Amino acid sequence: MFAKLCGPVPLINFRTAKCFYKPRQLNKFYNIIARANCSASSSFLCDKNVIFVAGLGDIGLDTSKELLKRDLKNLVILDRVDKPELVCELKELNPKVKVTFMPYDVTVPLAESKKLLKKIFDKLKCVDILINGAGILDDHKIEATIAVNYTGLVNTTTAIMDFWDIRKGGPGGIICNIGSVTGFNPITQVPVYSGSKAAVVNFTSSLAKLAHITGVTAYTVNPGITRTSLVAKFNSWLDVEPDVAELLLEHPTQSTKECAASFVKAIEKNKNGGLWFLDQGILEDIKWDKHWDPCI
Amino acid sequence: MFAKLCGPVPLINFRTAKCFYKPRQLNKFYNIIARANCSASSSFLCDKNVIFVAGLGDIGLDTSKELLKRDLKNLVILDRVDKPELVCELKELNPKVKVTFMPYDVTVPLAESKKLLKKIFDKLKCVDILINGAGILDDHKIEATIAVNYTGLVNTTTAIMDFWDIRKGGPGGIICNIGSVTGFNPITQVPVYSGSKAAVVNFTSSLAKLAHITGVTAYTVNPGITRTSLVAKFNSWLDVEPDVAELLLEHPTQSTKECAASFVKAIEKNKNGGLWFLDQGILEDIKWDKHWDPCI
Repeated sequence: MFAKLCGPVPLINFRTAKCFYKPRQLNKFYNIIARANCSASSSFLCDKNVIFVAGLGDIGLDTSKELLKRDLKNLVILDRVDKPELVCELKELNPKVKVTFMPYDVTVPLAESKKLLKKIFDKLKCVDILINGAGILDDHKIEATIAVNYTGLVNTTTAIMDFWDIRKGGPGGIICNIGSVTGFNPITQVPVYSGSKAAVVNFTSSLAKLAHITGVTAYTVNPGITRTSLVAKFNSWLDVEPDVAELLLEHPTQSTKECAASFVKAIEKNKNGGLWFLDQGILEDIKWDKHWDPCI
Repeated sequence: MFAKLCGPVPLINFRTAKCFYKPRQLNKFYNIIARANCSASSSFLCDKNVIFVAGLGDIGLDTSKELLKRDLKNLVILDRVDKPELVCELKELNPKVKVTFMPYDVTVPLAESKKLLKKIFDKLKCVDILINGAGILDDHKIEATIAVNYTGLVNTTTAIMDFWDIRKGGPGGIICNIGSVTGFNPITQVPVYSGSKAAVVNFTSSLAKLAHITGVTAYTVNPGITRTSLVAKFNSWLDVEPDVAELLLEHPTQSTKECAASFVKAIEKNKNGGLWFLDQGILEDIKWDKHWDPCI
């Protein structure tokens, strides 16, 4: 995959290399992955096969539209509920791109996720990018929030590794996980949601650092407060602040269109380990504090 | 509760105050909570009723022993598996403290957690501190890791609010959640576990900031690598590093006893919002970066 993105890179057997080098020495393989990022450009998405989980959602739909301004090869939208009129609208936006829809609930068991992905891989042969965007915001629903926002994202990511992991002969791939600014610092009134997004941010930063083993790079896009139906009205934990939505919306927010534009820019930057902060036209790669180091 | 800990504090109806003051002005109530922390001392735990979820675990057991060097009133240990010989041992350590055991699996539905807590509150009348310590470390078990480490902790916390929330006439309380240094920066080889701990850290920091509404203060204790049976051997995600346990243990680690000593010191400091880093005798309150602010 790296070769495809960036031109030739030296052939390395990552698994063997791991046997001969101490963990810190493996950093040189990180450098190869870093060089693979060089190709980020406005033509980056050209001819790519992209799976977009929740690509019909509020941020999802406008991001799908933004993606369709580029000449992808395939955009496979997985979402819980089919909205045929929206899929039709997307299909008409760019006739060069094949848009397909398949129903998918991220809370299904891992085996189900793998089955669905197998169907997609059988059809497309290769997939370049997986966008994990399923999310709910309702702190009355503890189990559902965590199951969708974190467990579902982990399962979908784990499922695609069967097809991408270079240790299994796969070609590698790119994972774009939708986190949230609340994963950096919470909206305290929705601690369950915010915690689930912190999990996504932390999980994805690990994936990025495992890229030398798996061949799969990863980053998060973390939108600020975006004017979606999700945010228009939502429950706070134990109703600690019944007006949380209204209070949030009193401050500057971004539209889903603004968010989508930054989102696709982040995808085009294709930075392994990127912690993208997206708010009101800002697209910034957050630097995370190092509080400790496991040294392995 | 604050009065009990610190001597008289002005009587405030927090709910009414919330109606009259803008969110930022409510900071003055935070100050009251901050003053409530003044009582932190070696006699802090004297005469307290403490519930300890997973108080028979590896870190849990030594922490229970350390707690029993203080003259608590009650130590109620909730754990998945009864280990009568350990409970007997604990009971003998300090005859002034009533040690009881009740079976509890944190993955039960919220209603079950509330039922169990009702039994405890009916018996003890008041509970001062809840320690949430249930955790598993096995990145082959995605659902279980998240259900125990995050969902279970959120549910137990949510359940106790029925008895503590000052909006319901409760006396307030103190929540001590066991996070992990991996919640700050991951052990990349166990991304699922690390993510679940990031969720705990983020969730708890919200609880702390909600204390002016709920009367319940909160902090995390975040142990570094501790020589427990959990760490002796564990599965990495997709076996990205089969020797992850051995590699970790090549570096300086702490014993469960060292960890327990710092743990109880942190409890005695009783700092709302504390992000305690516990490693090899170090006990440090981590300062978290502010990347954004919801302004509410």
